[in-house]
Amino acid sequence: MELTDIHSSADLKGLSEAELEALNDKLRAALLVKLSRHGGHIGPNLGVVEATLALHYVFDFPTDKIVYDVSHQSYVHKMLTGRMDAFVNPADYDKVSGYTNPDESAADLFKIGHTSTSLALAAGLAKARDLKGGKENVIAFIGDGSLSGGEAFEGFDYAATLGSNFIVVVNDNEMSIAENHGGLYENLRQLRESNGTCQCNFFKAMGFDYRYVAYGNDLHRLIDVFREVKDSVKPVVVHIHTQKGEGFAPAEADREHFHYGAPFDITTGAPLNMDEEPDYGDITADALMDMMKADKDVVAITAGTPGVIGFTPERRAQAGEQFVDVGIAEQAAVALASGIARGGGRPFFGVVSSFIQRAYDQLSQDLSINGSPAVIGIFYGTVLGMNDVTHLGWFDIALVSNIPGIVYLAPTCKEEYLAMLGWAMKQDRYPVALRVPGCKVVESGRTFPDDYSELDRYSMVREGTDVAIIAAGSFFGLGEQVADTLAEKDIKATLINPRYLSGLDREMLSALKAKHRLVITLEDGILDGGFGEKIARYYGTDCDMMVRCYGLKKEFADRYDYSAMMKANHLDPSDISEEIISLLCNS
Amino acid sequence: MELTDIHSSADLKGLSEAELEALNDKLRAALLVKLSRHGGHIGPNLGVVEATLALHYVFDFPTDKIVYDVSHQSYVHKMLTGRMDAFVNPADYDKVSGYTNPDESAADLFKIGHTSTSLALAAGLAKARDLKGGKENVIAFIGDGSLSGGEAFEGFDYAATLGSNFIVVVNDNEMSIAENHGGLYENLRQLRESNGTCQCNFFKAMGFDYRYVAYGNDLHRLIDVFREVKDSVKPVVVHIHTQKGEGFAPAEADREHFHYGAPFDITTGAPLNMDEEPDYGDITADALMDMMKADKDVVAITAGTPGVIGFTPERRAQAGEQFVDVGIAEQAAVALASGIARGGGRPFFGVVSSFIQRAYDQLSQDLSINGSPAVIGIFYGTVLGMNDVTHLGWFDIALVSNIPGIVYLAPTCKEEYLAMLGWAMKQDRYPVALRVPGCKVVESGRTFPDDYSELDRYSMVREGTDVAIIAAGSFFGLGEQVADTLAEKDIKATLINPRYLSGLDREMLSALKAKHRLVITLEDGILDGGFGEKIARYYGTDCDMMVRCYGLKKEFADRYDYSAMMKANHLDPSDISEEIISLLCNS
Repeated sequence: MELTDIHSSADLKGLSEAELEALNDKLRAALLVKLSRHGGHIGPNLGVVEATLALHYVFDFPTDKIVYDVSHQSYVHKMLTGRMDAFVNPADYDKVSGYTNPDESAADLFKIGHTSTSLALAAGLAKARDLKGGKENVIAFIGDGSLSGGEAFEGFDYAATLGSNFIVVVNDNEMSIAENHGGLYENLRQLRESNGTCQCNFFKAMGFDYRYVAYGNDLHRLIDVFREVKDSVKPVVVHIHTQKGEGFAPAEADREHFHYGAPFDITTGAPLNMDEEPDYGDITADALMDMMKADKDVVAITAGTPGVIGFTPERRAQAGEQFVDVGIAEQAAVALASGIARGGGRPFFGVVSSFIQRAYDQLSQDLSINGSPAVIGIFYGTVLGMNDVTHLGWFDIALVSNIPGIVYLAPTCKEEYLAMLGWAMKQDRYPVALRVPGCKVVESGRTFPDDYSELDRYSMVREGTDVAIIAAGSFFGLGEQVADTLAEKDIKATLINPRYLSGLDREMLSALKAKHRLVITLEDGILDGGFGEKIARYYGTDCDMMVRCYGLKKEFADRYDYSAMMKANHLDPSDISEEIISLLCNS
Repeated sequence: MELTDIHSSADLKGLSEAELEALNDKLRAALLVKLSRHGGHIGPNLGVVEATLALHYVFDFPTDKIVYDVSHQSYVHKMLTGRMDAFVNPADYDKVSGYTNPDESAADLFKIGHTSTSLALAAGLAKARDLKGGKENVIAFIGDGSLSGGEAFEGFDYAATLGSNFIVVVNDNEMSIAENHGGLYENLRQLRESNGTCQCNFFKAMGFDYRYVAYGNDLHRLIDVFREVKDSVKPVVVHIHTQKGEGFAPAEADREHFHYGAPFDITTGAPLNMDEEPDYGDITADALMDMMKADKDVVAITAGTPGVIGFTPERRAQAGEQFVDVGIAEQAAVALASGIARGGGRPFFGVVSSFIQRAYDQLSQDLSINGSPAVIGIFYGTVLGMNDVTHLGWFDIALVSNIPGIVYLAPTCKEEYLAMLGWAMKQDRYPVALRVPGCKVVESGRTFPDDYSELDRYSMVREGTDVAIIAAGSFFGLGEQVADTLAEKDIKATLINPRYLSGLDREMLSALKAKHRLVITLEDGILDGGFGEKIARYYGTDCDMMVRCYGLKKEFADRYDYSAMMKANHLDPSDISEEIISLLCNS
């Protein structure tokens, strides 16, 4: 059978064992070719070729329903559900997203990109089925790394009470993005070592029936087990032990590196584009490692993404007890940071903008109400960062800056970031969040103060008249460009680096009234609930001061083009300059 | 020993067993007197008198450190740590909060009011201790009901890896606020029935040592066990089975009712003030029960607080499979609602404003990105609601309204709430959140539309000139008062009910420019990131339109006086009217 002959689960039903084996090989080979040319989640998808094919052979999608956790491992599922072209035709590679997407196929139930959500989402499908008297199978497919997230636990706890068909496939490849951490993983190890027979069993303790598959890349064994649990009338876990990166030696050998990656040489695994520029993760890790050497109370914390803060395996080994990976568990990470600070330690928790969303309540309750002087580094908070709809870095300003008590700083370049990081880690008065300035490192060559304890003091970088440009964090460069463009037209604009996203410099804003008729705000995030609106409110009753806020429209965009997105939001120096001139002329 | 002779754990150390027993009785008696006169968390505190006394007898606080989960059960801890006056002198009853509070005593480590946070916070204390080479005991004290929250699981998972002293006391009284739900609770039952010996053990599966105390109200047995685990060098769970409401027959008999309550007759348990007025919970439950009868796909969901949405034990029994309690697990509740909606069901998840904070990411990712037409009812979102710092209902507008795709409606009265609820539960286009209009039911006698599918259309209730008052939700009444006050001074104000918190009626806002010079916004929440700022931004470049936003200052206030808080934020009809007149005269 050719790959392009497969359009749905139905096309697999009549195949012999040998035909299935041959098909499995073709799927993995095609997948590897696309991954090598296009990049993506390499190890997770190579590891589940057999499991996915077995599921599609045994079950009937989309009648039966499957929810993939994170859904970064759903490539083979896509290949088997009408989207083969996007895996075998290079011109069509970008026709599908890297995650499940109901817009692409009825076999995809949800747009998913965050971890640990599959059980509760699938439990909802099962509950709706039960109310309607349906009989289809509902399956949640979750990796061991995602088990550490509290939402997964909550999902197990509820789903056990369904009393009806509910199948959880736990894909245990002994890895999160990096190695796993946590007490639960010791139990998974015991289960693997006892071939699933040890009495103390997390899944049974949660109320599930349980089956273990020691070699989860054995297509036929998987088919047998899935047949056994199909149409089961009570919740069951099928724990399969798989090889991350199966069938591609470099990915099997370096599972962390090949979790996600850019195009690579299909023979050696070597990256095709060598990018040796240090990123903000490296910069952060270097700074923290220096602090750790000087102060044993400094602790770097990650929630399952050590690479984001530059903690390579080498740096993790060097940091020893001063590095903590709580697993994918942002809630615990924030609470832990608060507890460490309360106990006199100096914690830094580094987290992706899209994932800090998982800990709003912990930022508010565990951290800020308690005034714990922990530091939260928020990475990739920018329109020029991840552009999958589930990973947008647009919302953290509205999320963090409106929580009382947290000082949210927006450095504009590497030098200012390091100055603010240094202050934040030394002070003991405030919870401090740092918005890492974009993805691409900007070196300004400027020097910055080493003390930010006098809150909400903006920095006036250029003094002009008529228009003041308040350009926050990663959009400070855009502000400079606007000021330069205006200067070419003989308009001398004031340029301000606000530094603080969480409060207003009322003194400076008041003083601006003397010589300015227009204030422009620029922020790298959505306008709603953001920084600019606070400025607009401040000047609301000043008849002689106009305010124009620039930022992103509140929406969920998916895989957008960066230039088009900037243009659509008028984030272009010449557009902004023209509008400024127009406003000044007409007022 | 008299109660007032106790100032810290140290005062207990020399007591004999008989003296301890006598003290225990005095503690319970005094506690019951205060509870009967003052109200509070009745059952949780009566149930842990022995456990708290035993802990203070065995450990040395504040050298040793204890973190109480939710901390609503910390009354006896307060009695034993220098705050006895607040329990034995009626004049001093309000000198302490109902939760742990470091401002009151060094024996309290954190301000805590939300569930499931104790393990991760305490783990932070333990980690800081280990970095510093300290030897003190660190204890987390958590009830069985709080175990269902994902953050508790994340805390277990991390704490198991500490490899040092970490003691978790699991206070199992077989109840959350109401009865427990979830697979985990079956394991707790098995553990109780096997006297802690059953092989499949959640806590052991998480990597903890384990001890069981069958009668957790036996002071001496508790002392023995706490002595055994004191100074243990690895994480251990002490699972104690206690009686909620111990020693007060009415509270033992009706554990749900006596979880939290107002003053009651100390003999019979009968409430001293009978309040028979229906609240928005009753109104909600009645409406949902009617819908359930007509449509088997309607499901009411709670995360451990069925009383908030009026689901009494009787209504829960009537609703049967159409009522779901996921336990205290807001994340799963939102994801479950999204899944049910995706499966064709009609879910309503009712939740307290302060607790929806625990599910920001689920509102964004699981619900809104997927456009699932689930309904989220948000209760007690008002400055006139709960006034403990950990339970403020001020933040939900900024939290919910800035998430793309969620329609956030703010009904102004009972009639409009029911109209909007009816529409939300029938439609299948949008995730809808409803901000229940305050705590006290307002009946306007007005009729309202039954269709809100044309989004962001404000309703002009009175048409005037010069000033337009946009008064949202529970502050609509305040807006009416301002308009009435202005009318007495011959100023005919426009009054608008915006209805939608999540978007602007640009057409109406534009039309206002013709006859108005000032727009006033009124919202029952913090100004930062809220509703008014969006209006201020909209008019930012209109030189002829002033905007003044009224709402709450961004801060964490604790046990504030309602009138003083309203006044401090200028939320007074005459103050607002005067300012309007001043602005109109000076512009």
